[in-house]
Amino acid sequence: MSISTWDRLMSLAAIGDTQDGGVNRQALTPGEAEAWRLLLRWAAEAGMEAATDDAANLFLTKPGRDRSLPPIMLGSHIDTQPTGGKFDGAFGVISAFNAVAALAAPPRDVTVVAWMNEEGSRFAPGMMGSEAFSGYRPIEAIRACRDAGGVTAGEAIDAHLAQFPDLPRRPFGFEVAAYIEPHIEQGPELEAAATPIGIVTGIQGKITWEIVLTGAEGHAGTLAMADRRDAVVAFARMAAEMQRLVGEADPIVKFTIGMVKVEPNAPSVVPGRVTFRIDLRHPDNAALQAAGSLLEATAERLAAPCAVQVTRLVDAPSNEFDPELRARIARAAETLGIRAMPILSAAGHDARHMAPRCPSAMIFIPCRDGISHSPLEWSTPEDVEAGAAVLAETLRSLLDEDA
Amino acid sequence: MSISTWDRLMSLAAIGDTQDGGVNRQALTPGEAEAWRLLLRWAAEAGMEAATDDAANLFLTKPGRDRSLPPIMLGSHIDTQPTGGKFDGAFGVISAFNAVAALAAPPRDVTVVAWMNEEGSRFAPGMMGSEAFSGYRPIEAIRACRDAGGVTAGEAIDAHLAQFPDLPRRPFGFEVAAYIEPHIEQGPELEAAATPIGIVTGIQGKITWEIVLTGAEGHAGTLAMADRRDAVVAFARMAAEMQRLVGEADPIVKFTIGMVKVEPNAPSVVPGRVTFRIDLRHPDNAALQAAGSLLEATAERLAAPCAVQVTRLVDAPSNEFDPELRARIARAAETLGIRAMPILSAAGHDARHMAPRCPSAMIFIPCRDGISHSPLEWSTPEDVEAGAAVLAETLRSLLDEDA
Repeated sequence: MSISTWDRLMSLAAIGDTQDGGVNRQALTPGEAEAWRLLLRWAAEAGMEAATDDAANLFLTKPGRDRSLPPIMLGSHIDTQPTGGKFDGAFGVISAFNAVAALAAPPRDVTVVAWMNEEGSRFAPGMMGSEAFSGYRPIEAIRACRDAGGVTAGEAIDAHLAQFPDLPRRPFGFEVAAYIEPHIEQGPELEAAATPIGIVTGIQGKITWEIVLTGAEGHAGTLAMADRRDAVVAFARMAAEMQRLVGEADPIVKFTIGMVKVEPNAPSVVPGRVTFRIDLRHPDNAALQAAGSLLEATAERLAAPCAVQVTRLVDAPSNEFDPELRARIARAAETLGIRAMPILSAAGHDARHMAPRCPSAMIFIPCRDGISHSPLEWSTPEDVEAGAAVLAETLRSLLDEDA
Repeated sequence: MSISTWDRLMSLAAIGDTQDGGVNRQALTPGEAEAWRLLLRWAAEAGMEAATDDAANLFLTKPGRDRSLPPIMLGSHIDTQPTGGKFDGAFGVISAFNAVAALAAPPRDVTVVAWMNEEGSRFAPGMMGSEAFSGYRPIEAIRACRDAGGVTAGEAIDAHLAQFPDLPRRPFGFEVAAYIEPHIEQGPELEAAATPIGIVTGIQGKITWEIVLTGAEGHAGTLAMADRRDAVVAFARMAAEMQRLVGEADPIVKFTIGMVKVEPNAPSVVPGRVTFRIDLRHPDNAALQAAGSLLEATAERLAAPCAVQVTRLVDAPSNEFDPELRARIARAAETLGIRAMPILSAAGHDARHMAPRCPSAMIFIPCRDGISHSPLEWSTPEDVEAGAAVLAETLRSLLDEDA
């Protein structure tokens, strides 16, 4: 009795269903706990062993004949954005689950992973599970993050794991032989190329900043222009110049100011403070760092007469996935007669943190109109099954080496 | 038994006292009703007749010997900002009250007015009472405004007036012989000049806009720069150019973008919409309108690739107060040996709406550091009594003409 990847995906999507096509199943919520219970039931039916760790990552392992060998790991995440869809993350976990469940007695352990809080919507920034596992961020720093209601990630992890007292806890950073993460593309390229499989070359680098401009409040009707330290004026000048110098200077860069907070934000008060976030991405690390330095210099240069405080929140270089593993995925697609093409990941993924630890790769499938993080997020059953088939064939090829 | 203007001011300031020096007594709240009861008690003690109108303006009249003559009217408002002070508005009403209460049997009626909702903090925009009285804005439009809790101004007016069922209602726009409004300066000029009396030459004109820039949301990591319609980018370019063309082109203009709202305001989402407010002021109407036209043209010119919607919310030309009445105030100050100087009002006042109807003027007194709308708002007892004395002397001079 085997259930298709598509059918399992739809079963999982019922948990957190927002009735508009979307899914709201944020990290460490009752919805995610319910999703764990579904996966644990399926894992038990498939003869897999379940475990977790101190970061509430979920591991479902089909035991291998030689348990001393490091496992092959496949997976992604099952948490979603508050206005998320059915596929982002879930496709990776479910296609991995089906590939592993189908194995009878593999030569080594094969583990499905569902990383904790990839999305970062409840606790920011995301990728907490893979960051803890890889040692990129200490678990203490992760536990200290708070959600909008003031609950710490530590409290949420403890409350979540208390619902699964029987799960053994594995240590962070146990050895892994190879890691493959299937995911929807979250961009338009595969759809445009009518190609169901993207073999991800790497993840573009990303730097994010919080910038605080501090001026002085004043009465809009009385304070002379020459005496003002208007934080919105400083912001506008700075943001326009950053767009000109960085956003429009390179066709590949992605430069975004998505969040702006003005204080006191009253129509007749000269604004005393602006806090904003910059999101900068580039596949080339040298170009990323050069653009980042230019943004920081521009912030310092144009802040006056306001004071400026520039803080890098994230500084994640671009990475290149393992060439041999990518070639193996390409051969798997060819074996199955499924079209594939190389593709760069514009979005970040947990695979970023596994790549320094073991040969790692990602398999993308198309999503309609490039839309994700939305109830409109959609991949066809054909593309879902094609992605699952290529993953399973790649896994078979890897395990053949042990035989 | 006469109570000083200062002592009455402090009694009034106890209603809505925020315990930090400030007063929160917003329009049509229980605090304002309590303030009415205090004024009504004082008026009864002083032999004055009380009345209201359909806009909940409060009129306290010392009856004249010839009641067929139009009254002289003095006053301001007693509502405050949520973080208001003891003087803004209240000084005008209390100094007017004391000037009128001191009269025995004036040749004509003299009326103290407390206009409804000058501040516009609970129901925006403000100056509702004087706008209704003057016919500047229809009472139906005023009644339809809602506060943050969804209560209409009409409901609040009705609930307020229901507490004073014995007050007769006067019609809007009854004839007034002259109007004088005492007020704190809300700017630093009188203090800097060590001059207790400002004779207000006029109120600078003001135009406000709401501008909505509509682009398209997208993923900060995947959407190519060339394909974006980023509302923050359009805002920054537009605001920086407006500052350059208008804010820095004229030493007298006041140009402020005090309110900016970004949607969805998420760090990794290309922003799809920006809504912002412009506050533009200038004492010269031609310059005000020219700057306004330039701002509107700039909004249209720089919005692309976003759509733009430009709405004028307020368009109040500058005005000049009555030269004869100003000269009379100057003579009154001279008579009393109190220093006075001409001054422009940078802020709007109810007197703006009386000026087209009758000879109108304003008397300013200093406020410390130019601060208002704050618990730090402060005028000295000496300046308060100087302002009250000049008002009373000006009133005496006006009534002498009838004698």
